[in-house]
Amino acid sequence: MSEKNGKNNKLTLIVFSGDIDKVHAAFTLATASASMGSDVTMFFTFWGLNAIKKNPPRIKGKGFMQKGLNFVNRGGAKRLPMSKFNMAGAGPAMLKKMMKQNKIPSTEEFIKMAHELKIKMVGCEQSMQVMGIMKEDLVDEVSEIVGAVSYLSEANEASNNLFIS
Amino acid sequence: MSEKNGKNNKLTLIVFSGDIDKVHAAFTLATASASMGSDVTMFFTFWGLNAIKKNPPRIKGKGFMQKGLNFVNRGGAKRLPMSKFNMAGAGPAMLKKMMKQNKIPSTEEFIKMAHELKIKMVGCEQSMQVMGIMKEDLVDEVSEIVGAVSYLSEANEASNNLFIS
Amino acid sequence: MSEKNGKNNKLTLIVFSGDIDKVHAAFTLATASASMGSDVTMFFTFWGLNAIKKNPPRIKGKGFMQKGLNFVNRGGAKRLPMSKFNMAGAGPAMLKKMMKQNKIPSTEEFIKMAHELKIKMVGCEQSMQVMGIMKEDLVDEVSEIVGAVSYLSEANEASNNLFIS
Repeated sequence: MSEKNGKNNKLTLIVFSGDIDKVHAAFTLATASASMGSDVTMFFTFWGLNAIKKNPPRIKGKGFMQKGLNFVNRGGAKRLPMSKFNMAGAGPAMLKKMMKQNKIPSTEEFIKMAHELKIKMVGCEQSMQVMGIMKEDLVDEVSEIVGAVSYLSEANEASNNLFIS
Repeated sequence: MSEKNGKNNKLTLIVFSGDIDKVHAAFTLATASASMGSDVTMFFTFWGLNAIKKNPPRIKGKGFMQKGLNFVNRGGAKRLPMSKFNMAGAGPAMLKKMMKQNKIPSTEEFIKMAHELKIKMVGCEQSMQVMGIMKEDLVDEVSEIVGAVSYLSEANEASNNLFIS
Repeated sequence: MSEKNGKNNKLTLIVFSGDIDKVHAAFTLATASASMGSDVTMFFTFWGLNAIKKNPPRIKGKGFMQKGLNFVNRGGAKRLPMSKFNMAGAGPAMLKKMMKQNKIPSTEEFIKMAHELKIKMVGCEQSMQVMGIMKEDLVDEVSEIVGAVSYLSEANEASNNLFIS
């Protein structure tokens, strides 16, 4: 494994998308990188928070707008749509079956695997406030809720930073 | 704040998307980074140019195709759609209200804030040519129109580069 | 050209999208970077594989699901949709014409140009397995099929890594 500046390799990922194809790309890169010995941090923000919501997700929020958004956007690892060919859910179902046949993990398995590989999974404080999502709505593998500044401090030390939108 | 290679931290962002949720993610990262003392350059290209068009935007272009594209894609900071749940504009309106309640800046406020934080905002020469957009169509805070080569020279010196698509 | 850590500049790109506007952004950055003397690797994965499928693409797959997906998602450089304003293909046709008028290469020309500039174009092993795509379905300019781990080893040594989604 290569090193940059004599530091260990580090990958930081901003998971902005909640589409299953993109979330799985993020987890594939994260787990491959962690299995190579890199430090990995995944920062889930905006639609990406759907990937780490508990199943079934709670529908709440401070006002009718947050409640409404949280209903149409309820998320949870079992419900993620696809970015293309969603076909009212048939796309993700087909993809999940194809992934299973190819022994590729589900979102929930990816979360568990990431946790075992010591990948740091954090939620974005600001977008959780806007969307009315609380720490307890997220899976237990999420260790912290952090702001953009603390994410950026980590990213500045990483050898690889990606924005998955 | 950490430093890499004894250089100051630097963040370069390619803003390819013109969706309000993604544009705001770009500005959130950019302004957080600049407030930490990093140099920041935002390179607006393709749909991302919509975020920095003057309000209300001019509808013109060299031929009927550029005019047509500039009509369906007229943009301007007040008009940006959402990447999901756009619901004929109800989605962005709802998001803007939720953001206001949470004291998060509008696109126009983000542009002003970025300018005050000395964030360099530049337009992509090539995509402006293809789309028939001129320097005077863009807000005054945009300092320069540059090509991909000059963007990449900056990006090669940055500690963090992101593509917001 | 600037150097980081006394190493040559290197750009690694994950092309996850198969939308023509995003694929062309990837090729524009890749070819600009290579023409500045940087090493460039483009890793095509998931929908991005459509950009490097032969024209006309073969419709096959191991089961009816792979066949079905490969039909709705048949791709090939001549068929890429646009991420916005696709308008049943009128959007990409308009864009292609505007690009031609502005002397911007087509996807096929970009692939040839990238090859001449010694850009390394590789396909993602895992997503090809899931989608039932074989090496011989891809254009000859694709030199290798690699996994995420070998991509990440390269990315860790690059001065700039981008995820085009």
